[in-house]
Amino acid sequence: MDRLRNHIEEIAELTDQEYENVKTFFTLRRVKRNQYLQQEGDLAKYEFLVLSGIFRMFYLDEEGKEHIIQFAGQNWWMADYQAYFNQKPATLHILCMADAEVLYTTLEGRETLSANFHKMEHFFRVKLTNGYVAQQRRIVSLLSGSPQQRYEEFGQLYPHLMQKIPKKYIAEYLGVSRETLSRLYSG
Amino acid sequence: MDRLRNHIEEIAELTDQEYENVKTFFTLRRVKRNQYLQQEGDLAKYEFLVLSGIFRMFYLDEEGKEHIIQFAGQNWWMADYQAYFNQKPATLHILCMADAEVLYTTLEGRETLSANFHKMEHFFRVKLTNGYVAQQRRIVSLLSGSPQQRYEEFGQLYPHLMQKIPKKYIAEYLGVSRETLSRLYSG
Repeated sequence: MDRLRNHIEEIAELTDQEYENVKTFFTLRRVKRNQYLQQEGDLAKYEFLVLSGIFRMFYLDEEGKEHIIQFAGQNWWMADYQAYFNQKPATLHILCMADAEVLYTTLEGRETLSANFHKMEHFFRVKLTNGYVAQQRRIVSLLSGSPQQRYEEFGQLYPHLMQKIPKKYIAEYLGVSRETLSRLYSG
Repeated sequence: MDRLRNHIEEIAELTDQEYENVKTFFTLRRVKRNQYLQQEGDLAKYEFLVLSGIFRMFYLDEEGKEHIIQFAGQNWWMADYQAYFNQKPATLHILCMADAEVLYTTLEGRETLSANFHKMEHFFRVKLTNGYVAQQRRIVSLLSGSPQQRYEEFGQLYPHLMQKIPKKYIAEYLGVSRETLSRLYSG
């Protein structure tokens, strides 16, 4: 569990006693490649912190086409937040792309931690801030970027994911056809 | 300034003394229709809370085409967050679409408030959470929604904006051509 402490302490330092309390709100789960962490229709009970491995979260449309909302690698938080914050059934799938370990917590756990520890409220606020900025940037890119710009921006922002994720999925994430991406970057 | 207090107290109740302190971090500004609150290249020093009026925030591409990232009506927060949180020059324009009053605060103000008042850290976390959820939903819609679905979802989410904003700008926000929108909804 020290990985959790290290992750939190990048933003907010905890005493040993505080950490002993904080960690009781998290549970470890191992997930294998191609295993679903969540499927559409499941109650979105949990939020996940990825300790290792890679996931993709996607919406499956009526024609069975995937639309990738987010990848998540080490130290990323991930949930179908609309469903999670309202404790409703998920509309998004979360699929493991490389053997993984995650910590999960409930909404009640997150809110209790935030109420009991100003430091944890701060931690969650900073993480949300970073996530909000990344999403705002992604919306700019989806609306205005050419396929080439989107692809290059992705590579700059997420060099590790670029190496590990098949181009097919990166193309889906970018909202670009695989053919366009292949034409731009053969091989 | 009581509008600020009412807005905050939808989430976190403040004592009179706390509010007296909190409000010193905000400044009122009146903005007229067609006036810019921020232009590309300006230092993104401020974050804005809209008290009245309507704004649109957009990216202007190299061909001079607008890509609308966000509208903001009453009680919405708005900033070029990537620039604001890094205190860099803005890449987004913010333009007033209907005479408006805004309160603005600095990043230092926001952080000081959050550090001094657990309640204010909570307030900002909740606002960010709502914003994050709205953005995640928008990404799903941009990637997977048909023009019709996007337009109808916008109308459900923001009925007031739907009435007040010309269709031309709604089409831009949705990433849909004006012709497509007109074909779907003549009149």
